[in-house]
Amino acid sequence: MTGGVLYVVSGPSGAGKSTVIKRALNKVDGFSFSVSYTTREKRPGEIEGKDYFFVSEEEFHKLKAKGEFLEYAEVHGYYYGTSKTFIKDKLDEGYNIVLDVDVQGSLNIKKEMPHDSVLIFVVPPSYKELQKRLRGRGTENEKDLKKRLEDSKWEIQQMDEFDYLLENNDVPESVNRLVSIIIAEQLRIARIRDGLEEKVDKFFKHDFS
Amino acid sequence: MTGGVLYVVSGPSGAGKSTVIKRALNKVDGFSFSVSYTTREKRPGEIEGKDYFFVSEEEFHKLKAKGEFLEYAEVHGYYYGTSKTFIKDKLDEGYNIVLDVDVQGSLNIKKEMPHDSVLIFVVPPSYKELQKRLRGRGTENEKDLKKRLEDSKWEIQQMDEFDYLLENNDVPESVNRLVSIIIAEQLRIARIRDGLEEKVDKFFKHDFS
Repeated sequence: MTGGVLYVVSGPSGAGKSTVIKRALNKVDGFSFSVSYTTREKRPGEIEGKDYFFVSEEEFHKLKAKGEFLEYAEVHGYYYGTSKTFIKDKLDEGYNIVLDVDVQGSLNIKKEMPHDSVLIFVVPPSYKELQKRLRGRGTENEKDLKKRLEDSKWEIQQMDEFDYLLENNDVPESVNRLVSIIIAEQLRIARIRDGLEEKVDKFFKHDFS
Repeated sequence: MTGGVLYVVSGPSGAGKSTVIKRALNKVDGFSFSVSYTTREKRPGEIEGKDYFFVSEEEFHKLKAKGEFLEYAEVHGYYYGTSKTFIKDKLDEGYNIVLDVDVQGSLNIKKEMPHDSVLIFVVPPSYKELQKRLRGRGTENEKDLKKRLEDSKWEIQQMDEFDYLLENNDVPESVNRLVSIIIAEQLRIARIRDGLEEKVDKFFKHDFS
């Protein structure tokens, strides 16, 4: 059986990744969500193993030491980690997965799963536009904003480690482009090479004379 | 400037390539036709350098010896050759090109232009369906048909030299898939790597502090 593909979407905050991902996922089939580990407390209604795997900080660091995280991050004092086991199992079952992670995390994933992952770098049209979008959110203070802009300089420089570049000038166009990348990658012969002989056999089956 | 991409579509006759290509080209921009060399006579209304480059058999063989053909074929006693110069010039100008050529020709093109070409293998759902489609055409005698079916066995075996596999079960779906491949390939960072530094510079231009 041919396994699924892990699509890793990244780029500076303010590039508009999450909107593009959400709309693209409405147009394609065969995707699974990723369930991450977190050290934050379970909120009412959240389900263990569905929303997150809830663990203590001690357990998180043990898992980290065991190499269980494809990438992890600390946000507002809590840890979040992408489970390698969960992702690999889903891909083996034939599901595709999209992850929205930071640039450093993407590079780690590429190192861990070079053959199963496809890295997509999303950028706004310009640095000026990036500043505008981040300010427009109004959710961050000037210090956080400055840090994000500062980070984006390094992030942009990592672009050539990625497989695809998606300049997000127009959301519907970006959605079409992401959907195209998703569809095209599933047709790549390098990706289905293991199943190719079987495909050829199947093609000729029963009626090859 | 980033150059264009040469999309080479191939596969056994009866796979339905030409219909899929024609409809896909209606959905994308930035494509140029390829003008080939031929030794057949110019028909009324045909224009030199637009429909074909018309040459004598002697000239054709000289061009062949000079390595001017990305691929060539003999059909009903006349030669047809894809011009390397023409294709390279168009790609340099930023145009994309789709070629519909036989499997052997595709492999030659890959050898000549490994970085600028993308090879797409189109197959019908099964060998039985291939037989049905070829017979359904009714344009070929039993001997030609047998030869085409015989050739298809070797052709199918070459599949793993290609970049993409397109199983043509449903024409609209195949058109969408070909369009997706076309769009996605133009977003590949490996393809725009030469222009990447310029892109990064442009991103920060005027407003990088």
